[in-house]
Amino acid sequence: MVAGRVMVVGGTHGNERNAPWLLEAWRRHPGLLHRSGLSLELVLGNPAAHAANRRYLDRDLNRSFVPALLAAAEPGDRELQRARELLARHGPQGRDPCLVAIDLHSTTAAMGNSLVVYGRRPADLALAAGLQQRLGLPIYLHEQDQAQTGYLVERWPCGLVVEVGPVPQGVINASICLQSQLALEAALEVLAEARGGALRQPAGLVVHRHLGSLDLPRHGDGSPAAVVHPQRQSRDWRPIGAGDPLFLTAEGTTIPFHPPANRGDGPVWAVFINEAAYGEKGIALSLTRRETWPVEPAWGRTLSDLARRLQSPG
Amino acid sequence: MVAGRVMVVGGTHGNERNAPWLLEAWRRHPGLLHRSGLSLELVLGNPAAHAANRRYLDRDLNRSFVPALLAAAEPGDRELQRARELLARHGPQGRDPCLVAIDLHSTTAAMGNSLVVYGRRPADLALAAGLQQRLGLPIYLHEQDQAQTGYLVERWPCGLVVEVGPVPQGVINASICLQSQLALEAALEVLAEARGGALRQPAGLVVHRHLGSLDLPRHGDGSPAAVVHPQRQSRDWRPIGAGDPLFLTAEGTTIPFHPPANRGDGPVWAVFINEAAYGEKGIALSLTRRETWPVEPAWGRTLSDLARRLQSPG
Repeated sequence: MVAGRVMVVGGTHGNERNAPWLLEAWRRHPGLLHRSGLSLELVLGNPAAHAANRRYLDRDLNRSFVPALLAAAEPGDRELQRARELLARHGPQGRDPCLVAIDLHSTTAAMGNSLVVYGRRPADLALAAGLQQRLGLPIYLHEQDQAQTGYLVERWPCGLVVEVGPVPQGVINASICLQSQLALEAALEVLAEARGGALRQPAGLVVHRHLGSLDLPRHGDGSPAAVVHPQRQSRDWRPIGAGDPLFLTAEGTTIPFHPPANRGDGPVWAVFINEAAYGEKGIALSLTRRETWPVEPAWGRTLSDLARRLQSPG
Repeated sequence: MVAGRVMVVGGTHGNERNAPWLLEAWRRHPGLLHRSGLSLELVLGNPAAHAANRRYLDRDLNRSFVPALLAAAEPGDRELQRARELLARHGPQGRDPCLVAIDLHSTTAAMGNSLVVYGRRPADLALAAGLQQRLGLPIYLHEQDQAQTGYLVERWPCGLVVEVGPVPQGVINASICLQSQLALEAALEVLAEARGGALRQPAGLVVHRHLGSLDLPRHGDGSPAAVVHPQRQSRDWRPIGAGDPLFLTAEGTTIPFHPPANRGDGPVWAVFINEAAYGEKGIALSLTRRETWPVEPAWGRTLSDLARRLQSPG
């Protein structure tokens, strides 16, 4: 099988400025980033949106990696063209192939330093487990949501999102940058270990498995009828129980949380509370279930098989 | 002289969502806002930018109220047209005249609940003094900065900006809304007192007088060469001394603060640190001098003369 590099992406959303600042710093001063002996491809995800300081121009690039869209005969909008360009250049069958994609994002929600994994691919889970073992990062496992698909990292054999917040759109914050870099360096260490045949894995992996999302209550014209309750704001990664304050109407009425039906028992944990960019997606917060999974040896074998094909610099 | 109302503006910047949320709530439920017996004109400042969730479309509306621009023969861009429309409708000589403008803003900087006053108009200072007496709000006195002119409130006989943060662009935060409403209600109480001939004023007014602004260090191509130092981030309204950490380069070098020359002696206080929208204006933070001024009786007389012309509802 073909060899390849690790793609490190920042600025997939053009108004998230921290990762692009890091990419530029690492380009100017390669010694600032500990690469663990791996050859990296540093990629500004959406240069046109970055130049405009907007999340995207025509559509969310990080929802554009939908196979049917990518394969369509029409040229498509600017983000779809960019998605195809990234795959043609740095996809696993690209001209300059990459095998792993680490996509560095930031959020206005108080997510801290965290990971988002899409689905249950063994290599992704092994990489996330190694990262959680090193830094204790919480993991949001996103799956089975037909309303939100087409994430960039899904089109590479292994990949995950590093999500750090809270930070406003358009703001570079040194602390957010530091957290992003620590997560990336830990990911590269895990990959280097796997390549060297010495992957350490924890016994268990704690994930927050996606159950669904809640929108704000809205008026008939679509405008919000309530906002996130002040007792819920910034309480990401915490459980939310039946009857807990969830939203607050303009009149000052508290709307309590009702656990979703048909989602099983047990506490529900909230993530991405009041993320600025999700308003237009109809997401005021997402609900998860916190689960501890045994780490399966097959995950690490899959990651190690992949990592052995990762290139060294030069 | 003509009678008029109090204009309450929100969404002068289209990605500041808290004040527009309040405006909509007060329209639907007028009893939610204590109006102190004053007739209000609730105005969405820049509806087109609000619909696009962008600060502005063509130019910053809150820098567009420049007399020479407003008087120009050319139709101008969308914000200039909107500025003229606001004046034609609700200016002091407008079809539905307003005498006071309270412009509700939010910021990504940790400004708390604060006021911005432009120049030293007596009525503005009396209104600000009354607000400071009631709520203790800090006041940023903006003046003598030729790079930043054309603020909306300057075109009304009396007016000031309520500036609340930190909150990301695009986010409605219940606590930010509450602070905005408290400031507005206090302003209306001051105006009602002045109208009734019973204006209370404190003995002194504490202002943070604008000295100038600092940009980030930049590379030759204009890209940032450093970011706000983590020890400076979120420290608005605090003194910054010679040698204090100011910026941090990508290489990890701390750039210390050097007090500006020819600005007099005494400590310098920072405001609007790392406001997202000011990057494009070349402002990483602004510097002020904290001064206590005696409140002059003439200020209150000017405000009271104006306030007697304010209308009651109905």
